[in-house]
Amino acid sequence: MSDFQEWSRTVAGEMERTLESLLPPSSTEPKRLHDAMRYATLGGGKRVRPMLAHGAGLITDAPDDRVKIVSAAVEAIHAYSLAHDDLPCMDDDVLRRGKPTCHVEFDEATALLAGDALQALAFELISSHKLADSPQQQVEMLQIFSRACGSHGMAGGQAIDLANVGRQITLPELEFMHILKTGALIRASVLLGALCGKPLAETDMQHLDHYAKCVGLAFQVVDDILDCESNTEQLGKTAGKDQDANKPTYVSLMGLAPAKRFADELLDDAQKALSGFDNRADRLRQLAEFIVRRQH
Amino acid sequence: MSDFQEWSRTVAGEMERTLESLLPPSSTEPKRLHDAMRYATLGGGKRVRPMLAHGAGLITDAPDDRVKIVSAAVEAIHAYSLAHDDLPCMDDDVLRRGKPTCHVEFDEATALLAGDALQALAFELISSHKLADSPQQQVEMLQIFSRACGSHGMAGGQAIDLANVGRQITLPELEFMHILKTGALIRASVLLGALCGKPLAETDMQHLDHYAKCVGLAFQVVDDILDCESNTEQLGKTAGKDQDANKPTYVSLMGLAPAKRFADELLDDAQKALSGFDNRADRLRQLAEFIVRRQH
Repeated sequence: MSDFQEWSRTVAGEMERTLESLLPPSSTEPKRLHDAMRYATLGGGKRVRPMLAHGAGLITDAPDDRVKIVSAAVEAIHAYSLAHDDLPCMDDDVLRRGKPTCHVEFDEATALLAGDALQALAFELISSHKLADSPQQQVEMLQIFSRACGSHGMAGGQAIDLANVGRQITLPELEFMHILKTGALIRASVLLGALCGKPLAETDMQHLDHYAKCVGLAFQVVDDILDCESNTEQLGKTAGKDQDANKPTYVSLMGLAPAKRFADELLDDAQKALSGFDNRADRLRQLAEFIVRRQH
Repeated sequence: MSDFQEWSRTVAGEMERTLESLLPPSSTEPKRLHDAMRYATLGGGKRVRPMLAHGAGLITDAPDDRVKIVSAAVEAIHAYSLAHDDLPCMDDDVLRRGKPTCHVEFDEATALLAGDALQALAFELISSHKLADSPQQQVEMLQIFSRACGSHGMAGGQAIDLANVGRQITLPELEFMHILKTGALIRASVLLGALCGKPLAETDMQHLDHYAKCVGLAFQVVDDILDCESNTEQLGKTAGKDQDANKPTYVSLMGLAPAKRFADELLDDAQKALSGFDNRADRLRQLAEFIVRRQH
């Protein structure tokens, strides 16, 4: 196992334990809701966003316990977005991370409320732990985080994604959608991870932000490639779904080979954005590579 | 028009204008989502929560512009909860504030995402405006607010409400549900309004909190009484709905006359909690009266 693999497994394992302890226990009321929140969040996922937060935190010597909270909050948002995205009125999917989706395992109303409560929990986590040396910085973190979740971030991206189904759209339109839908939260993961530590120069933050944008987009391009090339078992979610749903993807708009080249260019661009950082940015470099080269 | 009526109309009118300007404009993408967010939030509602925030702010000489932001955030949460609550998988209601519900006017997915984005917007509002003299206090406000929204607050109350349909429950169980479902956000409105101003002594905060709990519960008891006694036109939402849905209410568990007596007791209790405050608490006193005596 490579050093990076070991690190990423450690981060993922710690993330699981952190979420285990931060999510409301199934033994407290409302139990079914808490069960559903835990079901939607625990036991799966690549934990890419926590890895990005931890990677960025290394650059600013951020205390690990702070980065864990930020990562848990980001994963709570990610889990809520999946629970809502899988609902019948949205993507209507029955399989996620190799398990029945939340509304299949529970019911629609519970999946809806679990998502709602997970969003609130994410903000509770970031406001009820000390995550920065100054409270002012923590308020700024909450600002970055809330913007990433809202109509100019993830929720907005999902709305555009829905509106695009069955429509002929252009590559810039597809890019705009993804920058919001997945990019915003990935960007927040990197920035919040870094903000847990020592202040960075404005230009360094901009470089990190550019890295995050490239990685976020690359993540989606690779998702589209995998959705086209893999089968359901490998993905742990329904494969070929986007194609079936007549959803525009990088592959459908560019073709497979150009989409792969585009992912490579984004990887290159992400690495260049890190060129001014020392070896504390190595995990972020490896992560960019991992995100583009992954097979599921 | 009484002095209180004039004040409450002014607060409601200002709230409308504040929300108008703080909600993302319909002219920016994603337009349909922004339209739905505005539809769900603007042009209706009693604005009881903003009135409570303003009333509490008067006690601590809170600057009006701060209380307006807090009120807008609370209303965004309230509007999101209604949009989700009306969805077919929840209460499946078609009428709200005399208009088609959000998913009827738009579609289910848009109503779902509008709710999601409104919750994020609420946190964005409280984190992107200066609302307290110290950033530490603002972080605490975000903590109170996020807890009020989550599984130990509003979302949890909705989950319990759903689980109670068709079940025989006890009065304490009904009360526990309402303390979460509507009480938590009403409590947050009062506390956050007060926290926009000068610090209060711990015991004064406890008295305010007790006032808010009584008023929150009274609000619900009166809602149940009105749901039983009024018609759909008067309410602006489907009347008799709870009864039809076999939902336990204060009226169904206690009977109409005892429910009315209980509302009076809660009003009494709320007023007693304010007895240590000077006349700056008069608006809160009048609000308690208004909440119990209202006809719709």
